[in-house]
Amino acid sequence: MTRWSAGFIGVDWGTTNRRAYLVDPTGRVLDTFEDGCGVLAVPAGGFEAEVRRIVERLGDKPMLLAGMVGSNRGWRDVPYVRCPASLEDLAAGLQWEEPGRAAIIPGLALLDDQRADVMRGEEVQIFGLMAGAQGADRITICHPGTHTKWVRTTADKIESFRTIMTGEMFALLREHSILAPQMTAPVTADKAFLSGVDAGRSGFPLTAELFSARARTILGSLKPEDAASFVSGLLIGSDVLSGLRDGAADEVIVLGRPSLTKLYAAALHHHGVRSRESDGAAAFVAGLVALTEVIG
Amino acid sequence: MTRWSAGFIGVDWGTTNRRAYLVDPTGRVLDTFEDGCGVLAVPAGGFEAEVRRIVERLGDKPMLLAGMVGSNRGWRDVPYVRCPASLEDLAAGLQWEEPGRAAIIPGLALLDDQRADVMRGEEVQIFGLMAGAQGADRITICHPGTHTKWVRTTADKIESFRTIMTGEMFALLREHSILAPQMTAPVTADKAFLSGVDAGRSGFPLTAELFSARARTILGSLKPEDAASFVSGLLIGSDVLSGLRDGAADEVIVLGRPSLTKLYAAALHHHGVRSRESDGAAAFVAGLVALTEVIG
Repeated sequence: MTRWSAGFIGVDWGTTNRRAYLVDPTGRVLDTFEDGCGVLAVPAGGFEAEVRRIVERLGDKPMLLAGMVGSNRGWRDVPYVRCPASLEDLAAGLQWEEPGRAAIIPGLALLDDQRADVMRGEEVQIFGLMAGAQGADRITICHPGTHTKWVRTTADKIESFRTIMTGEMFALLREHSILAPQMTAPVTADKAFLSGVDAGRSGFPLTAELFSARARTILGSLKPEDAASFVSGLLIGSDVLSGLRDGAADEVIVLGRPSLTKLYAAALHHHGVRSRESDGAAAFVAGLVALTEVIG
Repeated sequence: MTRWSAGFIGVDWGTTNRRAYLVDPTGRVLDTFEDGCGVLAVPAGGFEAEVRRIVERLGDKPMLLAGMVGSNRGWRDVPYVRCPASLEDLAAGLQWEEPGRAAIIPGLALLDDQRADVMRGEEVQIFGLMAGAQGADRITICHPGTHTKWVRTTADKIESFRTIMTGEMFALLREHSILAPQMTAPVTADKAFLSGVDAGRSGFPLTAELFSARARTILGSLKPEDAASFVSGLLIGSDVLSGLRDGAADEVIVLGRPSLTKLYAAALHHHGVRSRESDGAAAFVAGLVALTEVIG
């Protein structure tokens, strides 16, 4: 019997959205909801009330909170755990806001002479995936999103990672740039997407290739309705090249929302790299279960 | 005696600003003004009235208009002249809106199997610079701005060019991105700028290095007040690398606004490339004078 034996609530609390799960000790999801109450939507001092709203909705169970809720814009700025990091390291960095009732899971940081990087929230999904891989040595994981993470693991640790601002850049371009008027169609992994992936191999910076999308539509070599897929292919193609640059991989596990993972799988395939798509929500719950077993 | 003998008006009419010059036939600027009346500020059908406002202010002289005024958002969508292009080719593409009184100068386009690119307005400055270089063979010109142009010339032609979306990207990041809260200080060619230039050599895409700016400020290895200079250095450094990639150059002429050309000169120097800064406004007027001599 541990404090988790009667089930628990897990919350993936991001910048603009949050998703909460009521989980039984075996990892079965009994109830879940998602809403737009990301940390930016919560006023200062408002997190206790928001946590009570989750309890009212899913029941009075101990709660584990991951993501930006643990940042300087969230409930509390919980110190990052440094990589390489095991699940035990993550558990040791847990911050109990309401003793025994609500804890914030720390994010991970990487800092050496060469690089600095941070993540908050994805680490739970990655440990969940590792728990399912049962000690497989060295996995390369791509977690696409606003800030895509490329992660290298050893048998029991997140060894290192690199963030690529792919999703945010796509949103900036679609909403605010000179390309915005053309970028209205939904993105699909079609011919225009793959020609964007190819453009990402040119060796020229994204700022060069991005303007070419505008020039191509003006001069008629790119249909305006293909611009969004071309730009997505360009950004995701560069992202994938960059992720593979940190070390060759026989296979990449693309972990996240299926609508996104399929685009990354298409770009990887175009680069001749095998990939496997894995659902981020399931991995999040598996990561929480693994964490509760460590915390006890 | 030509129609230009009593002087003329030249207008560099961009997307968000315009600058008009009253020029005597020798190229002396007798009067000038700049305002925020770019083409986006002119309602459909409103260009005749705006041209009359210029006449009221600078006098009733024949007028040459360059820039986005000749685009599909401007007074008329004037067809691009294809590269390689001479000043004679540009003159042949002139579009007289009011015969003998107001003509729009066409932009340049580049289109082959590999690339598509366009410019509107910079070509006048570049021909002005070439006129001053008196037939020098093969000049490499960098024209920094919202959409930086790297231009290669032969003795009398603009041979090819490449656009890099550097200024627009900087503005997108400073106004709308997760980096925006840090990017408040003015950009200077300081140590943070040069460390951004170095980061641009990493071989990783801009989307990777941009997130590192955020991670570095969070983890304390980049001061928040240095973020704008770092990001500017990163974008300009990548821009410069890309411009030099199209062909080695003993010297690059950086043509444009002095506040910008000095940043590019610093990045070029950091890459070990000699540069010379040249004022864009003076080159614009010189280009117009050269054009009037060809038109006759």
